[in-house]
Formats: sequence, C-alpha cells, structure tokens
Amino acid sequence: MDGKGIGRKVWAIPGGHIPMGSAEPEPEFTSRDELCLLNTNEQPAQVEITIYYSTADPVGPYRLTVQPRRVRHVRMNDLIDPQAMPLDTPYASVIEADVPIVVQFYRLDSRRAENAILGTIAYPVDE
Amino acid sequence: MDGKGIGRKVWAIPGGHIPMGSAEPEPEFTSRDELCLLNTNEQPAQVEITIYYSTADPVGPYRLTVQPRRVRHVRMNDLIDPQAMPLDTPYASVIEADVPIVVQFYRLDSRRAENAILGTIAYPVDE
Amino acid sequence: MDGKGIGRKVWAIPGGHIPMGSAEPEPEFTSRDELCLLNTNEQPAQVEITIYYSTADPVGPYRLTVQPRRVRHVRMNDLIDPQAMPLDTPYASVIEADVPIVVQFYRLDSRRAENAILGTIAYPVDE
Amino acid sequence: MDGKGIGRKVWAIPGGHIPMGSAEPEPEFTSRDELCLLNTNEQPAQVEITIYYSTADPVGPYRLTVQPRRVRHVRMNDLIDPQAMPLDTPYASVIEADVPIVVQFYRLDSRRAENAILGTIAYPVDE
Repeated sequence: MDGKGIGRKVWAIPGGHIPMGSAEPEPEFTSRDELCLLNTNEQPAQVEITIYYSTADPVGPYRLTVQPRRVRHVRMNDLIDPQAMPLDTPYASVIEADVPIVVQFYRLDSRRAENAILGTIAYPVDE
Repeated sequence: MDGKGIGRKVWAIPGGHIPMGSAEPEPEFTSRDELCLLNTNEQPAQVEITIYYSTADPVGPYRLTVQPRRVRHVRMNDLIDPQAMPLDTPYASVIEADVPIVVQFYRLDSRRAENAILGTIAYPVDE
Repeated sequence: MDGKGIGRKVWAIPGGHIPMGSAEPEPEFTSRDELCLLNTNEQPAQVEITIYYSTADPVGPYRLTVQPRRVRHVRMNDLIDPQAMPLDTPYASVIEADVPIVVQFYRLDSRRAENAILGTIAYPVDE
Repeated sequence: MDGKGIGRKVWAIPGGHIPMGSAEPEPEFTSRDELCLLNTNEQPAQVEITIYYSTADPVGPYRLTVQPRRVRHVRMNDLIDPQAMPLDTPYASVIEADVPIVVQFYRLDSRRAENAILGTIAYPVDE
C-alpha cells in the first residue's frame, strides 16, 4: 500500500441485534455483534458511531480511535458511553470517520449450544 | 448526522425463503426472514415492498412507514396485507421508499434444534 | 415498479463449493449452493452461467430462462448440461443475462446434524 | 466471456479472525478463514495480500498467483511466508492484483460439534 487510505468515511448497518444469552463459555463464545474497522491510513481514524432504535431517539456519538495501519474489532456489547448498549433490541449503526475506513459487521449467536454466525460488509455511503 | 438521509430509494433481495417450522421456543426463535430498514431522515419514510414469486405474479405493495431517525426490523412472516406471506416458498423482495433508506436482510433458520443465521446488505439499485 | 428492470447484466460469485453429504432429510435439507435470480423486466431474461475451476478450464454456458417478473432459485447441484456440477470442489460462477437482473448467493451446509447457512448479494460487475 | 477480466484490482476484508480449534474431522472441517479469488483474465493474476493487525504493524505481502481463467480458494491458515498467520487474532486483509479479480470471504467455524459458516463479497475499492 502507498499509505493512501482506502474505503469510505460513512457506513451503515441496519440489522443490529445483540443476542441475549450465551450457552457457551464466555468471553470467547459470548453472543455479540461486532464492527470490524480497518484504517489503512498513515494517521489515526477518529470514529463516531450513532445508534438508531425503533422506538427511541438516536444515541451517540460513541467515540473511538483506530490507530494508523491497524484494524479494530469492536464488540457492540462493550459500548457504554454515552449509554450502555441494550441486549435483545433492534438497532442500526451509522459509522462516521474523519478519514476513509472499511467496515464489516459480524454476529456470533451462541444462545443455543452450537454457534451461529453471520458477516457482511457494511453499506458504504455514497460521497 | 446532519439530518440528510443516507442510502438509496430502491433495494432488492432475491433470495427470500421463509423456513417452515421452528424447533426452538417462539417467538424468539421463530424461523424467519427479516428486512431491516434504516431511516436517517428527519421525515418519515413511506415504504412499499413488492414480492416476486417463481410461478405467480408479483404481489404488493405491502405498505409500511419507518419513522424519522428510526430503524425498523420487519419479519416477513408478519406481512399479511394484501396477502399473507407463504412459508417454504422462494420469493424476492423489491423495496421502494420515498426518501433514501438503507436495507439489510436477515434469516434465522431454527428448523433444527440449533440456530443457523445469515445476513447481507441488500442490493442498492443504481439511480 | 414501472416495468423497467433493475440490476445488472453481469454478476460474479467466487466462493462456490457444494458441500458433499447431508446429515438431514432430503431434498429439503440437501447440502447445496443456490443462485437466486430476480428478473423484474417485462420480458424473459436469458441467462448464461459459466463455471470456473481451480485446475480445469471453465465449463459452460449453462443456459436458463427467468420468466418476466419472476424470481428463480437455482440449486447448483441440479445443473447437468453441459456437465454435471461436481460436489466438494471449489468453483466460481459468472452470471450473464441479456437484461438487468439481481443475483444473490445462498448455501445450506447440512453435513452435520444441524444446519449452517450463508448468503450474500453477488458482485455486480461494472458496466 | 470475451476474455476481458471482470472485477477490481484492490479489495479489503476487515473482519478476519481464524477460529482456534476444530471439534470435527480435519482437514475437511478445519476451522478457517478463506479468500476466494476469481481471475477471468487470459493472463495470470499476481496477487499480494497485506495483513493488518490490532496491535502490530502490517505484515506482507503474501504473494500468490491465480492462473488465467481459474478460481483459487486460499485458506488463510495456510499462509506462512513472510510469517505464519496466527489463530484467534483479529486481522484484516487487503488484496491487490495486477489485473481485475473478484474476491469473496468465507469462514467455517467448527469449534463446536456443529458447523457455523459465513460468507460475503469483499469490499471492492474505488479506482
């Protein structure tokens, strides 16, 4: 890579829903939603996540930094400021960064004894 | 966000197929297809869903509203007007809104005792 | 819809691999790869699928028709002309149509007693 | 196909994480991440993969060739030069080729007795 960051500055993932309960050993198998944020830039990416709900106003921003030339996998379950993320509740995430990044969504659903997983590249918003 | 809605006005998801039967407790583990609709606009999104089948004419529109700055996760199983959605039948969804939205597709297949899940951003139609 | 077909004329899905074996009742739970083809046009879509392999020349085209305003879910396992699709073999699909369509990929892996599934919109080739 | 290669030259997949451990028979059910690389060109694709980590500098390039008109499914677990890929570690992949290719990501998680799978088209970087 030539140091030029790849990706987009705004991403969205409408299908958030942290499963409640885990039938398998934690923290490895904790049911969770994750955002996977790749920053290929030579500078830090300042990221702001806004959470949309079905029956309440949006909450945010949740602020975090992805260091230069690093990836960061963020468990949504762990976001607590400005408000702890609720379990078993439909939500959507809008991710905004000050430099281009790439965003993927991942879920591990371990409510039953066996794993179920899903993953998709988030929606890259047109600029 | 500055109030400008993100996304597209037309989306498609060809791979619909609501699994018939659920080996786990309902409604939490009911086998289902879901559309996850994010409206980041300051105004409501009027949404029309048209269902395409393999051997019958399209059915629709199914009308619903997503309130401003809200997400809505819609179980396809619950759509009944103008016609109840059939189970165990291949179908496709075309989603049209009067303002830009973002659409994700989700399936929970609980026909066996353990979960299986999939999720993908829908296809954003070129405008 | 106004009758104008949505989508693209060329799609690709590199990750084909039909699982060999099914631990659950067939044909409902047969392990399989599927292509889900949506034709929103007022005319039939003539589709040609070319299969790429790791160590052999491409095979095709596999020809099929999607009727106007219909969806068709095609089990790759069922493609036999010009050559039966092999199981447990890496392959890729390139899908070409004479009108715009939308393509989604689905896998059911039932080699174990419980289901595993995945699904993703195929890659829409730039035109 | 007319021999003109389809796809893009740069792709990214932020959500890498090879599951550690396999409860099912190997190598068929080995827990793994895979990159599925389709080269529809009439010439070989020279591919370079760079791996990004959370707390260490990027490693690469991992070099490999995809022959003309071939697909190649690469288990990330098998990449050892310039450095063996670690298990149970968050990472991202950036894939660069000298001709257009198409890239899909796949995971088999067999840490429990039953399979879990996910798959998504990688993010095609704007050119």
